[in-house]
Amino acid sequence: MDLFNSRGVAYKPAKDVDLSPTSSEFYLTANVKAPRMVGIVVKIFAWVLEMRILGKLLLYVLKANNLIYKLVGNAEIEESPVFLPSHPVEEKENEEVKYIGVALSETEQVQEAVSCLPSWSDTEVDSLNPSFHRWTIMDYSTAYRSRKITPLTVAERFIAAVSESSKPPLNMSFFINYNVEDILKQAAESTNRYEHGQPLSVLDGVPIAVKDEIDCLPYPTTGGTSWLHKLRPCTSDASCIRYLRLCGALIVGKTNMHELGIGTSGINPHHGSTRNPYNTSRICGGSSSGSAAVVAAGLCPAALGVDGGGSVRIPASLCGVVGLKPTFGRVPHSGVLPLNWTVGMVGILAATIEDAFIVYAAISSKIPSHQNAILPKLCFPLLNTSRPIPSVTMAKYGEWFNDCSDDIRICCSNALDKLQKHHGWKMVEVTIPEIEVMRLAHYSTIASECSTALSSYLEKLDSSQLGWDARVALAVYGSFGSKEYIKAQKIRNRQMYFHRKILAHADVIVSPTTGVRVNLDTIEA
Amino acid sequence: MDLFNSRGVAYKPAKDVDLSPTSSEFYLTANVKAPRMVGIVVKIFAWVLEMRILGKLLLYVLKANNLIYKLVGNAEIEESPVFLPSHPVEEKENEEVKYIGVALSETEQVQEAVSCLPSWSDTEVDSLNPSFHRWTIMDYSTAYRSRKITPLTVAERFIAAVSESSKPPLNMSFFINYNVEDILKQAAESTNRYEHGQPLSVLDGVPIAVKDEIDCLPYPTTGGTSWLHKLRPCTSDASCIRYLRLCGALIVGKTNMHELGIGTSGINPHHGSTRNPYNTSRICGGSSSGSAAVVAAGLCPAALGVDGGGSVRIPASLCGVVGLKPTFGRVPHSGVLPLNWTVGMVGILAATIEDAFIVYAAISSKIPSHQNAILPKLCFPLLNTSRPIPSVTMAKYGEWFNDCSDDIRICCSNALDKLQKHHGWKMVEVTIPEIEVMRLAHYSTIASECSTALSSYLEKLDSSQLGWDARVALAVYGSFGSKEYIKAQKIRNRQMYFHRKILAHADVIVSPTTGVRVNLDTIEA
Repeated sequence: MDLFNSRGVAYKPAKDVDLSPTSSEFYLTANVKAPRMVGIVVKIFAWVLEMRILGKLLLYVLKANNLIYKLVGNAEIEESPVFLPSHPVEEKENEEVKYIGVALSETEQVQEAVSCLPSWSDTEVDSLNPSFHRWTIMDYSTAYRSRKITPLTVAERFIAAVSESSKPPLNMSFFINYNVEDILKQAAESTNRYEHGQPLSVLDGVPIAVKDEIDCLPYPTTGGTSWLHKLRPCTSDASCIRYLRLCGALIVGKTNMHELGIGTSGINPHHGSTRNPYNTSRICGGSSSGSAAVVAAGLCPAALGVDGGGSVRIPASLCGVVGLKPTFGRVPHSGVLPLNWTVGMVGILAATIEDAFIVYAAISSKIPSHQNAILPKLCFPLLNTSRPIPSVTMAKYGEWFNDCSDDIRICCSNALDKLQKHHGWKMVEVTIPEIEVMRLAHYSTIASECSTALSSYLEKLDSSQLGWDARVALAVYGSFGSKEYIKAQKIRNRQMYFHRKILAHADVIVSPTTGVRVNLDTIEA
Repeated sequence: MDLFNSRGVAYKPAKDVDLSPTSSEFYLTANVKAPRMVGIVVKIFAWVLEMRILGKLLLYVLKANNLIYKLVGNAEIEESPVFLPSHPVEEKENEEVKYIGVALSETEQVQEAVSCLPSWSDTEVDSLNPSFHRWTIMDYSTAYRSRKITPLTVAERFIAAVSESSKPPLNMSFFINYNVEDILKQAAESTNRYEHGQPLSVLDGVPIAVKDEIDCLPYPTTGGTSWLHKLRPCTSDASCIRYLRLCGALIVGKTNMHELGIGTSGINPHHGSTRNPYNTSRICGGSSSGSAAVVAAGLCPAALGVDGGGSVRIPASLCGVVGLKPTFGRVPHSGVLPLNWTVGMVGILAATIEDAFIVYAAISSKIPSHQNAILPKLCFPLLNTSRPIPSVTMAKYGEWFNDCSDDIRICCSNALDKLQKHHGWKMVEVTIPEIEVMRLAHYSTIASECSTALSSYLEKLDSSQLGWDARVALAVYGSFGSKEYIKAQKIRNRQMYFHRKILAHADVIVSPTTGVRVNLDTIEA
């Protein structure tokens, strides 16, 4: 640690620090600069401190003097904060689920997931024809095993399709990076495994795209920027990518995203605006924009995203695919850009619930990925039992549910009607208090954590390298005091209480994911 | 929640909020005031935001507009933050300890603790004479059982002694409050139990004092102020007090403390400066000043304090008594003034290690008192085995150990020499990196949490009701940004790593508790 150089010190990783008596670590003698004050001096000091302008100035000088800026506020620290938003774990006895043993490998977990699904019929693959058709993971797996097609052929067609979609007239901007050589190499290896009758799992050779916020070799991790990968090189796969590779998945590239994940439109000034495959004049949402769009376009059955405040769920909704944000701590977060610590987690976008389930089985861990997190036992839903699926109870807060545009309200209400009439699901009306307060608390939290996470990088950056909306967001993000951050965590605790209480009498809370639809041209600069 | 009244809203406790569909909770439609910006507008907006003065002003208006001040930053929220500083629990097999079952009551825990101690010899009580003598808990218990004295007689002598110590020439300022009637009532009940041969535990009738930061009927909880009890009435006992009462302890009053616990001198402008019983011209340390002093003075064998940054350990050191700050979450925190959430915990001051151990057994819980905390199994040291006590390994960081005045260094070094020579303890030299950084991170943390915790009260307060040093401290405390707070939590994580690594090869880290001695008159205003 160099005390006499830059604005903030850069700490080396804790594991690299020498704790032996001969360590070269510098012992810094405490130098408490606050003067020893007695009598009138302390009174004058207090008066000045309590003044609006002079007080702030004096504080600035005092804090700088006390090294807090240099050693704490502006320091570069690799370790994450000691706090985690874990919550009380309530294990419920449940016959409808299968508990997953701690010793199972990723491929065994995938096998368990498949065994929980209804037996798959290959009528769809038999009806293969040149017209558009979304393949599920089981479609790929069965076609590979029966030699109807090879991963190599799929990879070649995938590359051709992505290439076409990237050019005019489509300009879909699905990917920030895809490496033809790397894709073909993986596909050849997978093809070889099938030829020897040794696929690693049902995911072997199945194309999976990855949001460019997750470390994945051989790609840089841009986070949707034009510069972050230069300051933070990607040197290894994230844990979730390693798990996917152990299952044989074909990693097909890094998808486009809202710059730094700090917006949900998917309009990116550096890598293009990801267009909605259902209507190219509409946005596809974000920040996991490309991951949702490639699934909707049928290029991959599933993709990975990261969700800190809707970044998986919003694009999933706008692209009509499944979006899953797992429980905090369930999917290892190592190797994901640390844009925040307590709200963002790796999520899954998939065309079907079954495929989201299979990918979840591959990447989820039974051991908390964060040192302090407490996780319930990992369990998978038994969807293949002959017993009738029990009635699901939906909790609906009418005021909130209806706070959206007419078309969305009607569409979502119809969906609920169908679930009730055709599947016998039940509905309970509830009140979820302080929803807008929760939104503001979430904003204060993610803003504070994001600006802190990026502070060391932003210092070294010319702000002109940032997009305009990122510049606005980051200016606001850095403005919160510790009081707002801490009170936001108190509000989270309240909301955990409310949600636990509601979910004691309901299985799910239902609501539209977004309140409006947006045309691309109304917000594109 | 009233949106249209004061600066910050006051939320009712989460458990009192109606979640039914007919709830009167107000649904606040999100009103995102940030204008929908395209083209040149967003650019101008970004430019202004990035300006030093105008930017701050614009942010202030934006945040106020977005209700973040009212609904988050300035709100009154009873719930604690969702984060806790829990840490990985490593259970080690250890033959030297006794694991305590989850189902044991407080009195049974005390009995377990006593059974772990070497058998007590009553030679000391036999030599009872009028000269000064500190009674241990076992001294009291044995004397009560053998009818040498009754709790009522002890209570009467205690009241006489406190009354004398409060007046000139002593002016010790040990207590903020003690209620003669309440003490005598408890003592009479205890005496009655002994007469019927039914004491509740070895603590029955033993005088225990309580820092005035812990709720304890019939007393108000002043926190060392002249006003806090008026804004926050004490309506029930804190959990730790309830546990002590279940064991029959004689609660003898509320001890003096540094105002709001935000200093360590024990000089209190409202309740007097607690003097050091060993030398009344010296301070006794703080903030649990009176609790350390009454133990040193022999008025109680033990007392409760609260320690957020040395507030038990510092006065214990300066008064020559034992100070114990337990593991986070081990002692229930409910009913303790919420002056912070992640660093302060109930601690114990006692004249002997055995007595600290017995009181710890009474108040410690096997079930985490905080919803997210992970605790190791509760275990007590087996001090009564015939096996030789194994060698203890002490870790010493020379640079830090020696960063104190000569007399303290010589005294502490002599103590270590004795432990090595006479008890065969071992010493390993280590480096604890970034100690000053840890101090600053601690300061940023406790300052941010304390000012947030008190913000609702301080708003209603004329600052002239605060002492001068509290005014200075609170002005500084409120000045930290969320970045400084979050980075401090990263530094805590680093330090947890360093400490785990050092304690893998050592049993304790040794250092002087304070670096200097202070005379009362050099800092008293």
